[in-house]
Amino acid sequence: MNKVEIIPVKGLPLVDEGFCVGEAIVEALARSGERLRDGDIIVVAHSIVSRSEGRRIRLSDVKPSPLASKIAELMNKDPRHVEVVLQNSRRIVRMGREVVICETEHGFVCANAGVDASNSGGAEYVITLPIDPDKSAERIRNEVKKASGIDVAVVISDTFGRPFRKGAVNVAVGCSGINPLRDRRGEKDLYGRTLLPKVICIADELASAAELVMGEGDEGIPAAVIRGYSYDRANVPAKAVVRNESEDLFR
Amino acid sequence: MNKVEIIPVKGLPLVDEGFCVGEAIVEALARSGERLRDGDIIVVAHSIVSRSEGRRIRLSDVKPSPLASKIAELMNKDPRHVEVVLQNSRRIVRMGREVVICETEHGFVCANAGVDASNSGGAEYVITLPIDPDKSAERIRNEVKKASGIDVAVVISDTFGRPFRKGAVNVAVGCSGINPLRDRRGEKDLYGRTLLPKVICIADELASAAELVMGEGDEGIPAAVIRGYSYDRANVPAKAVVRNESEDLFR
Repeated sequence: MNKVEIIPVKGLPLVDEGFCVGEAIVEALARSGERLRDGDIIVVAHSIVSRSEGRRIRLSDVKPSPLASKIAELMNKDPRHVEVVLQNSRRIVRMGREVVICETEHGFVCANAGVDASNSGGAEYVITLPIDPDKSAERIRNEVKKASGIDVAVVISDTFGRPFRKGAVNVAVGCSGINPLRDRRGEKDLYGRTLLPKVICIADELASAAELVMGEGDEGIPAAVIRGYSYDRANVPAKAVVRNESEDLFR
Repeated sequence: MNKVEIIPVKGLPLVDEGFCVGEAIVEALARSGERLRDGDIIVVAHSIVSRSEGRRIRLSDVKPSPLASKIAELMNKDPRHVEVVLQNSRRIVRMGREVVICETEHGFVCANAGVDASNSGGAEYVITLPIDPDKSAERIRNEVKKASGIDVAVVISDTFGRPFRKGAVNVAVGCSGINPLRDRRGEKDLYGRTLLPKVICIADELASAAELVMGEGDEGIPAAVIRGYSYDRANVPAKAVVRNESEDLFR
């Protein structure tokens, strides 16, 4: 194992619909004197991907259903925001006093179906996850290849809360050019014994590592490059990370 | 935000009871020409910490209870291993066909109460989590300070599975010299709007980042240094990450 670097992508412009995220990342890196290398992994916050795909919803265009209105009253939220959450869910997994844990159309289990009020560009908007984040990752990967000639892996991240532990962490919602799961079966432990089946979700670990240099706020760093990490380049989608309901003890 | 580096600690010897983990890390880094810097974060796999604290249990010394025997039969496991799992639990959260999800004495919810057969040093042993991983982290931090003069933060990690998503990820079970939670309240989003309460578990993200260079097997890298990440040096324990049952929708 060698040193791994996490490089913030600084100076990205604000992203609007139709924006070419991959090209903008290559250009922003070039402006700070960085050049992509073969085997680099680019982690991109879903917020800018969603915005580039027009997944920004104007709340004044949303008509809340009766259920959305009642949930909103219970939780002291904007009923139109709750309506967008319900429209982006295929199932409600839990409802608490302040949060709705949803299963999204992709199969992700997360608060508010990934619908964010932050980074939406104003109090009158929310943004949702991309429709197909694996396809979005593939598109960005192709854009990067076209702009730089380099074949990178792309991971699209979002910040998810989780059961049992406080604080959210960045996880992968889309990926391209990388197998998000690493099967360590057959590797040996420190004492030479063969490991029992043990699968690591490296895509989530990469997303979490990238979060350490990503920031919202003044610096606005919605992407990072991870360099020096060897990975399986099999093109497996992030939806392979979704645990089937039948194998899940918590749904 | 600046570049963050993840540096593997190579060449650590096999750890036995009484071993001074902090000093060994400083020496291993010195042998590979690395020198610690103020503000570095050392992530250490719990396996070597537990071993240094004698948390290795010889299965032939364990007498399984009737419940342990029945669970073991159901799951096709060693009843003595299951007995150690039960002894390290204060509650069973879920039982599946192949796994017991336990709440440990520390409050962590994880498979098999964190009792591992790998890295235990032979088929006749298992290792458990440290009794007080925050105290272990503090001890290692003091050892590092004594051996190097540098005040680092220490995070002790373990690999936990989680609901909803396949693959395990590294999380923090102990820490010292760092606040494991970062409250982003008051920070602005990309568009200048103030973020709603949003807490990030940076200790888990650091543990996950470190896993990218940590390995078992031939290279045997049970520790890593994370350099270049600015953090709140308030000395908050990792048990602050445990979500109270009353705030948890999944227990």
